[in-house]
Amino acid sequence: MHGSEWLVDGQGCAPARLRDRASVVGLMDRIVTTMGLHVVSTVIHVFPGPGGITALYLLSESHLTIHTFPETGIVTLNTYCCTPRDPAPWAELLGELLGAQKVTVSEHPRGRAL
Amino acid sequence: MHGSEWLVDGQGCAPARLRDRASVVGLMDRIVTTMGLHVVSTVIHVFPGPGGITALYLLSESHLTIHTFPETGIVTLNTYCCTPRDPAPWAELLGELLGAQKVTVSEHPRGRAL
Repeated sequence: MHGSEWLVDGQGCAPARLRDRASVVGLMDRIVTTMGLHVVSTVIHVFPGPGGITALYLLSESHLTIHTFPETGIVTLNTYCCTPRDPAPWAELLGELLGAQKVTVSEHPRGRAL
Repeated sequence: MHGSEWLVDGQGCAPARLRDRASVVGLMDRIVTTMGLHVVSTVIHVFPGPGGITALYLLSESHLTIHTFPETGIVTLNTYCCTPRDPAPWAELLGELLGAQKVTVSEHPRGRAL
């Protein structure tokens, strides 16, 4: 086993926040702080026009990724941590920082040994 | 809905390939080609000593991530594509390029609308 990955989807978000780099990065940084993660490097892309934002954080503990879809008010977030961690309060964070009205979460163990 | 994500875990891989940047990048590039994806930017980190490799590819279509664990022969791969795609032949590719003996795959729809 090499840890767990959480797939977190938020719906009913505020489109303006999903287009706002500071809001999206602010959420990522809050997750890093809350879970005690360590960022090695990041790559962030703001898609043009009505498009959303993608941010990928390369962590010592694996990865943190986010994609926003302002046209539908949806955000999709992954947090993969190869060492044990308590999950972040996903619904609370996505609600506070992006205005998400509904959040669905699933947890997936990764890398089962033979 | 905003597409599907595949979580692909390979076991029994050749440790030397999991430490080899060219092998890991070669797998990522084959997935990009096979699935007709478009790379916006990449970030790759080779962990020191006996550590593995992490690569994150930021795609027009979402993301492609990989983590290797040479100490256990395990690789964990994510492919998230926000537009419809046929999956890559995961077991075949991980077997050919990393020597994986067993591959487990799960597919997860992302971003269900309210």
